[in-house]
Amino acid sequence: MSAAPLLVTMGDAAGIGPEIVVRAFVRGQAAGCVVVADPAVLQRAAHLVQPLGLPLALIERPQDIAQVPPGALPVLRPAGLPDGLADLPWGRVDARAGAAAAACIRAAVAWVRAGDASGIVTAPIHKEALAAAGVDFPGHTEMLQALAGSDGRLPPVRMMLANDELRVVLVTIHVALRKAIDLLSVDSVLQTLRITQAAVPAWAGGPPRIAVAGLNPHAGEGGLFGDEEIRIIAPAIAAARAEGIDAQGPFPPDTVFMRARRRPGHAEPFDVVVAMTHDHGLIPVKYLGVEQGVNVTLGLPFVRTSPDHGTAFDIAGRGVADAASLVAAIRAARAMVAARG
Amino acid sequence: MSAAPLLVTMGDAAGIGPEIVVRAFVRGQAAGCVVVADPAVLQRAAHLVQPLGLPLALIERPQDIAQVPPGALPVLRPAGLPDGLADLPWGRVDARAGAAAAACIRAAVAWVRAGDASGIVTAPIHKEALAAAGVDFPGHTEMLQALAGSDGRLPPVRMMLANDELRVVLVTIHVALRKAIDLLSVDSVLQTLRITQAAVPAWAGGPPRIAVAGLNPHAGEGGLFGDEEIRIIAPAIAAARAEGIDAQGPFPPDTVFMRARRRPGHAEPFDVVVAMTHDHGLIPVKYLGVEQGVNVTLGLPFVRTSPDHGTAFDIAGRGVADAASLVAAIRAARAMVAARG
Repeated sequence: MSAAPLLVTMGDAAGIGPEIVVRAFVRGQAAGCVVVADPAVLQRAAHLVQPLGLPLALIERPQDIAQVPPGALPVLRPAGLPDGLADLPWGRVDARAGAAAAACIRAAVAWVRAGDASGIVTAPIHKEALAAAGVDFPGHTEMLQALAGSDGRLPPVRMMLANDELRVVLVTIHVALRKAIDLLSVDSVLQTLRITQAAVPAWAGGPPRIAVAGLNPHAGEGGLFGDEEIRIIAPAIAAARAEGIDAQGPFPPDTVFMRARRRPGHAEPFDVVVAMTHDHGLIPVKYLGVEQGVNVTLGLPFVRTSPDHGTAFDIAGRGVADAASLVAAIRAARAMVAARG
Repeated sequence: MSAAPLLVTMGDAAGIGPEIVVRAFVRGQAAGCVVVADPAVLQRAAHLVQPLGLPLALIERPQDIAQVPPGALPVLRPAGLPDGLADLPWGRVDARAGAAAAACIRAAVAWVRAGDASGIVTAPIHKEALAAAGVDFPGHTEMLQALAGSDGRLPPVRMMLANDELRVVLVTIHVALRKAIDLLSVDSVLQTLRITQAAVPAWAGGPPRIAVAGLNPHAGEGGLFGDEEIRIIAPAIAAARAEGIDAQGPFPPDTVFMRARRRPGHAEPFDVVVAMTHDHGLIPVKYLGVEQGVNVTLGLPFVRTSPDHGTAFDIAGRGVADAASLVAAIRAARAMVAARG
């Protein structure tokens, strides 16, 4: 029996999300996926991709994908969508687009938690549009964490960014750098290592070899340039190793990513790098281009991936958006689902 | 009349410095350079590069290079070198190596400040060896700054790292990340922009287009993730622009380096990126490999470059060290000297 379908949320209706979803489908790169969307928004986007648009198959439940004829895009329409979404101007923050994006995410989480879908791939949302709709999360990760919790308890999650060369898991994400330093603790680093150990075998083909980046220049140079490596990071690594996790470091941030980079003819010593801050981790992942990057939320009770870019309001509606990162996200989600068995 | 010679300091005698200096010379990539070194250390290194070693021409002053026969390596021996340097074990911290490295740097600065040399290219030193010799600087940059000062006043300097794809100037360097954040001010950022404007035309072929990276994730996301962009970086950029400096930003750290990366078929919008912290700047410069990187000190009253790597104690004495970064540093110094006219 094949796995339950993956769900793909349309993202912000005024951004490039609907367009890249349609493009991936038209190219046969979204097989086995059901889109959670407003059908009119998808059809508007379909006309950006091909002159005649695209046949949509509105279904009631994810498993109805089995009845969808070839060539038609299976769509689940969530409850509570605002009207007029397909008339929104491209590339503008709009509360209706924010409300619709949130409704798609909520519906997708409900389906996947009910066991009717195997995972979620999210197209880009716009934080300001969400906020305008009264949905205050700095990003998908935090919203999904809240939706995955129960009894007010949030599951510990971490953001992983991956491309063909590098995988990075972040200890801290959307906070001021000063606050990120305050948030580092033996517990937060150790928890990151445990989450990485549990989730990354799907990519690494086995227990991952984890490199842990330091926080300070030269990883603190023995305490001369900061003591977080001594007080926090090294003890967390030691605790993780005592649990059987293959974590090494802390290594100087400026060279650990270069060392872990996979490339032909190079036997890289690590499968994944744990970075203390958003930008230590994302600078190298994005340096060679964001087209192939995938964002993965580790620690959720379900599989979730997304492209490594935003709504790209500057090019929305022009029919030129590149679906490569979304396609990579779909491929990564399939691999994670397969690895979970 | 041709420019005064460049001086190349030998670096730590137990590291790869002497070997890469000899290798660059043997390959004809150090023409017009005089090495400031212990001759016995250089000769030991020469035997790593070719079986018969190398003829050395001990000279008294840089300008004596004109009398050195072709094929001989011109060497200036600084006063005050310890004995027995050529018998030091490879790859170990030793106070004598630290003292010798410092003596070479001091002598080179004296020659260049006297107008007898046009600039300095420094081979790698080891901070612990320097400290063991009672010379406490975290790196070349700080030592050169101290040597270039007068009456107790230090010239404001900044470290630039450059390779074929990217040039990055750092506002802060060898301090704890928390302390680096404390050190940011409108003055320190504005001074960095002024130094960059003054020094970078040698590479950019004219007044540089400067991208300024933010400090916080998403460059603070309008103040949500930190306010240094609003309080410090944006006002510094505005002040610089009022002085005619083409500075733009602050941009999100995770994408600005990717945008500035020079590559075929891509019209990059910036000549140089100013980064707030050591690792925001160095992670992307080093990500593709350290072989071609050059470290440049901006703001000194003389030209100074160095390779973008350390003493590599793990491979010292094995004859396998790569001189590419040193050669790139020599080339960069020549270009800066030429641009200064």
